[in-house]
Amino acid sequence: MTETLGGTGEFGLIEAVTKGLPRGEDVLVGPGDDAAVVAVPDGRMVITTDLLIEGRHFRQDWSSAYDVGRKAAAQNLADIVAMGARPTSLVTGFGAPADLPTSWAVELNQGIADEAELLGVSIVGGDVVQSDKVVVSVTAFGSLDGRAPVLRSGARPGDEVAFVGRLGWAEAGVAVLNRGFRSPRTVVDAHRRPQPPYAEGPRAAISGASSMCDVSDGLIADLRHIADASAVVIDIRSQALAIPEPLQAVAAATGVEALTFVLGGGDDHALVATFEPADVPDGWTVIGSVAEGNENLPPGTVTVDGAAYTGAPGHAHFG
Amino acid sequence: MTETLGGTGEFGLIEAVTKGLPRGEDVLVGPGDDAAVVAVPDGRMVITTDLLIEGRHFRQDWSSAYDVGRKAAAQNLADIVAMGARPTSLVTGFGAPADLPTSWAVELNQGIADEAELLGVSIVGGDVVQSDKVVVSVTAFGSLDGRAPVLRSGARPGDEVAFVGRLGWAEAGVAVLNRGFRSPRTVVDAHRRPQPPYAEGPRAAISGASSMCDVSDGLIADLRHIADASAVVIDIRSQALAIPEPLQAVAAATGVEALTFVLGGGDDHALVATFEPADVPDGWTVIGSVAEGNENLPPGTVTVDGAAYTGAPGHAHFG
Repeated sequence: MTETLGGTGEFGLIEAVTKGLPRGEDVLVGPGDDAAVVAVPDGRMVITTDLLIEGRHFRQDWSSAYDVGRKAAAQNLADIVAMGARPTSLVTGFGAPADLPTSWAVELNQGIADEAELLGVSIVGGDVVQSDKVVVSVTAFGSLDGRAPVLRSGARPGDEVAFVGRLGWAEAGVAVLNRGFRSPRTVVDAHRRPQPPYAEGPRAAISGASSMCDVSDGLIADLRHIADASAVVIDIRSQALAIPEPLQAVAAATGVEALTFVLGGGDDHALVATFEPADVPDGWTVIGSVAEGNENLPPGTVTVDGAAYTGAPGHAHFG
Repeated sequence: MTETLGGTGEFGLIEAVTKGLPRGEDVLVGPGDDAAVVAVPDGRMVITTDLLIEGRHFRQDWSSAYDVGRKAAAQNLADIVAMGARPTSLVTGFGAPADLPTSWAVELNQGIADEAELLGVSIVGGDVVQSDKVVVSVTAFGSLDGRAPVLRSGARPGDEVAFVGRLGWAEAGVAVLNRGFRSPRTVVDAHRRPQPPYAEGPRAAISGASSMCDVSDGLIADLRHIADASAVVIDIRSQALAIPEPLQAVAAATGVEALTFVLGGGDDHALVATFEPADVPDGWTVIGSVAEGNENLPPGTVTVDGAAYTGAPGHAHFG
């Protein structure tokens, strides 16, 4: 018989998922007490938190528990690097029904731990509760290592807009899965397990990025956040956005314009940033520019090839 | 017509709940970017996280949104003070269905903000997602202000066991609500809105507490965590536990022995700690003592009046 959480119990599960966790030397008190204690040598802690809800952010028939764990960690760690910071540690919350196989919970946690270990990040604590549907919360922490944080509000007229990472792959994967298919495998895997370009966040900060965010809602939507916060106008040149082959294949098969995935799709956790032209790091693709607002294009506007974008606006909850 | 989250939208709700939030001077970057940045002058950050699930931790017919917010913040802030630390900031996650009245979400957040403000704690970030049931996550942070953290593992034979705060009130409140009643009001309110003795955590640390935790699972269950982590035996003297009048009334009305509420009831977030006899702070009640384990009473055992406790064991999820 499959062992379930009802049999394993809260404390049994906590023991199963915390034993053998690697612990960085900055972890002064790890899991098992009322709270964790983490060293913050820089004197400033970068903090981000996300909730993932079964049926909204993942489906058990589309993603394995391990993949959900990788994704839950990845989307938080991407927020940390999008500040120009280095991820250091994280805590988790986990809610699940009593009839969930214990192995599912253990594999989820293994996914979180493996994604964290890519960056030397320690899991320092968590909470386990009973819930009708699976709920995962991750709160991640990072260090700026003496640098200023890169905010959304620093874009200036004359800056170039550049990105690194994937755009639209995860969204194309969802389009495929929604139609009951499992291929192209590359886009399905991109939905299941995003691969944020972690190292590029601190690298962009060192190169002098004036603003940055990770693409979680969609390129246009997230650039609007930068344009809003910076009180500027951003124009994207669609010619600069090469459409990768797998996205062309999905577009042909589904009848969706491929550019819609690239401009509107979130969840790949690419990084998009603004730089003075000389500061754009190698490996980043320049896709547009920053200008002042005017009567016709008020600050906060994002245009594509100089015109208002009328495609998918990007993801928003309750929308 | 009542405005719902479906109409307000994710970004509308974020704006509604973040505007006007007080921001402490240690908040370097507040809500609205990929991540927050908080000053940590002490160089060590105390971190705790909890998930609250509708139907498990609260019921909308028993608690107002405002009360759920107060409680969500309180249970995390209690974990911070139980380390001997001073709470400084917190982040929240909020999941809810699209048909939830927007006012419910705003009042929940007001409850979190008001509980936080009691201690000068800043809300520095959060996440808002769609979900079938209401889910609230809180991750709270604290500063040790140069002190060592008070762990569960420091109890030593010869120490006295003392507590401060309420024991069993919230559990008696649940017993009343479960029977469809709304009084005695004091115990129902204790369930809805715990009042942890926040100031006593740092005070106990300064007084030399050798171990400490907050009572969230129940006095016996939480003392077992201390006895386990410290490899000692703890004995509680039931005579030392005065039964407050409202608990006697609930006991008489429900036929439950009053001591069961006191020994097994969680969620009041009293603090229980061990001290050398001379170090017990004024206002704390000595209720027992710490001894070495032996053949009959192995380390990790908690007894009441020298005998194994056979009443309610305290709360555990999936139990």
